Amino acid sequence: MPNVAIVGATGAVGQEFLKILVERNFPVEELRLLATKRSAGKKVLWQGREIEVQETTHDSFKGIDIALFAGGSSSTEFAPSAVKSGAVVIDNSSAYRLDPKVPLVVPEVNPEDVKWHKGIIANPNCSTIIMAVALKPIFDLAGIKRVVVSTYQAVSGAGREGIEELEGQVRDWAQGEELKSQTFPYQIAFNLIPRIDVFQEGDYTKEEWKMVKETQKIFHVDTMPITATTVRVPVLRSHSESINIETERNVGLEEVKAAFQKAPGVIVEDNPAEDRYPMPWFTSDTDEVYVGRIRKDFSIENGINLWVVGDQIRKGAATNTIQIAELLL
Amino acid sequence: MPNVAIVGATGAVGQEFLKILVERNFPVEELRLLATKRSAGKKVLWQGREIEVQETTHDSFKGIDIALFAGGSSSTEFAPSAVKSGAVVIDNSSAYRLDPKVPLVVPEVNPEDVKWHKGIIANPNCSTIIMAVALKPIFDLAGIKRVVVSTYQAVSGAGREGIEELEGQVRDWAQGEELKSQTFPYQIAFNLIPRIDVFQEGDYTKEEWKMVKETQKIFHVDTMPITATTVRVPVLRSHSESINIETERNVGLEEVKAAFQKAPGVIVEDNPAEDRYPMPWFTSDTDEVYVGRIRKDFSIENGINLWVVGDQIRKGAATNTIQIAELLL
Repeated sequence: MPNVAIVGATGAVGQEFLKILVERNFPVEELRLLATKRSAGKKVLWQGREIEVQETTHDSFKGIDIALFAGGSSSTEFAPSAVKSGAVVIDNSSAYRLDPKVPLVVPEVNPEDVKWHKGIIANPNCSTIIMAVALKPIFDLAGIKRVVVSTYQAVSGAGREGIEELEGQVRDWAQGEELKSQTFPYQIAFNLIPRIDVFQEGDYTKEEWKMVKETQKIFHVDTMPITATTVRVPVLRSHSESINIETERNVGLEEVKAAFQKAPGVIVEDNPAEDRYPMPWFTSDTDEVYVGRIRKDFSIENGINLWVVGDQIRKGAATNTIQIAELLL
Repeated sequence: MPNVAIVGATGAVGQEFLKILVERNFPVEELRLLATKRSAGKKVLWQGREIEVQETTHDSFKGIDIALFAGGSSSTEFAPSAVKSGAVVIDNSSAYRLDPKVPLVVPEVNPEDVKWHKGIIANPNCSTIIMAVALKPIFDLAGIKRVVVSTYQAVSGAGREGIEELEGQVRDWAQGEELKSQTFPYQIAFNLIPRIDVFQEGDYTKEEWKMVKETQKIFHVDTMPITATTVRVPVLRSHSESINIETERNVGLEEVKAAFQKAPGVIVEDNPAEDRYPMPWFTSDTDEVYVGRIRKDFSIENGINLWVVGDQIRKGAATNTIQIAELLL
């Protein structure tokens, strides 16, 4: 059984790793919990073992087989040391995702890419993972000519602080107090912020470029035309996406629905007669990508509209990472 | 000066009519306030006059020149009587919008259509108005080949009850109590509901078809290809829209921005360097449509992405109605 390290064990994604390892019966010999100095010394009870959180250093990875990095700046600082120690790193940060020497993997889409890793495997951006799982059945069925996506992203994308900021603002509002913003640039309660991460080329944000370039890499189609608008919404932890797809070939709506029914990692929730469609409040704490509002797009010859929802912390981050680790075993 | 009646005077839109008539110095000889039996007898102070709300009946419109209908089922019941009495009806309901004998007007887009009315002028759906104002400068500049829109619609679209339900759910959540849903089919606090109004043809909702068909009518292009996904979000009163436009002709981004700068009813809020873009919390209680995140869409030859926000109760309903009334004078 492998020795596993979690880097960033006390954050939102790190805590989810601990739960998912148990849920999925991931075999673990030693579990080493690493974090910043601030969290070192904390004790965590996991599977009847009491584990003390240690400060991450370059010597933290001796004997480790698989190192799960929860994200953030610790990746570029410590991932190379982990690889040198002989561990395979699965990294949630954006640092290595577009590196041509690093596979970028969504297990439902491109599991075979795990094979050619050279020590690091990158976990894609959360919005990208959720979209990629939904695009895959259509890609296989009819080819993808173009994607227009608008996102509705939960505050958990900004980590534990994001969740606490929305909850705090809502509590302050209910008590008639002034709302404070620290994690987000503006109030997020009762508001939408159409800017996630920094602005880059063409006045697109880094988050928007991630959805374009990471998706192209995952599908091995460097020129796949994708355009994205990413928006933060006052929702706690599931991301939602309105995805418009132009397919290469004509395809019937029933074929599309049948493909989703069979697709791994997808739950179809699409029944207008019973008022059923995916919603972020009800999909939190689940591992699947929920697909609904499946419609022919009548504005174009070969078009499909989808409404897709997935838990940002789980399938958007922690679950996908553990699934990659499972592929390694 | 005209005698003006407001039908539905005590609701969210009706109350806004009262404010906007004053703000815009709309000339009013007599103001008659009409509502359902339940609200009859209420006293409203307006411009120093105390006005008693009367129950709407078929005889309520004697001597009235302009009747502003706030929306709902009272339109089909009483608009014909108002017209028979000699009033011009400006109607916020969806009943007459697609009637070929009724003009559907956004004053910034098709003011000339007011001229051919036969007693009733329809005010478009709120999301449609906000999109139409933003599409107009691009339509004039480069032609519109196709529109893909995803909406982020405030609870005010469901009237005063919608606002009260979100506020109530947030208060209950803050106090650890169970959340109650009556106006919306599911909890809206911390959630998104990707279904507005009833399901219709092709599993699109009525709201989505409104955005397609009303926009086509307003622009006098019955075949304009538009596809919409409409979503309720936990925001109080401004609607937001992510709009992707394929233009007929190639056009530079600077030309597009210049066209928006000159466009009536539009405020451009688009400065990435200063982190400026439109947000619903900050655009509430205003009359303009805010346009930002103006980008070239690199996934297609002639494409533009926009993020557009407008107050649903004002420009989406009451302000547009009063603007139509101004065109009549």
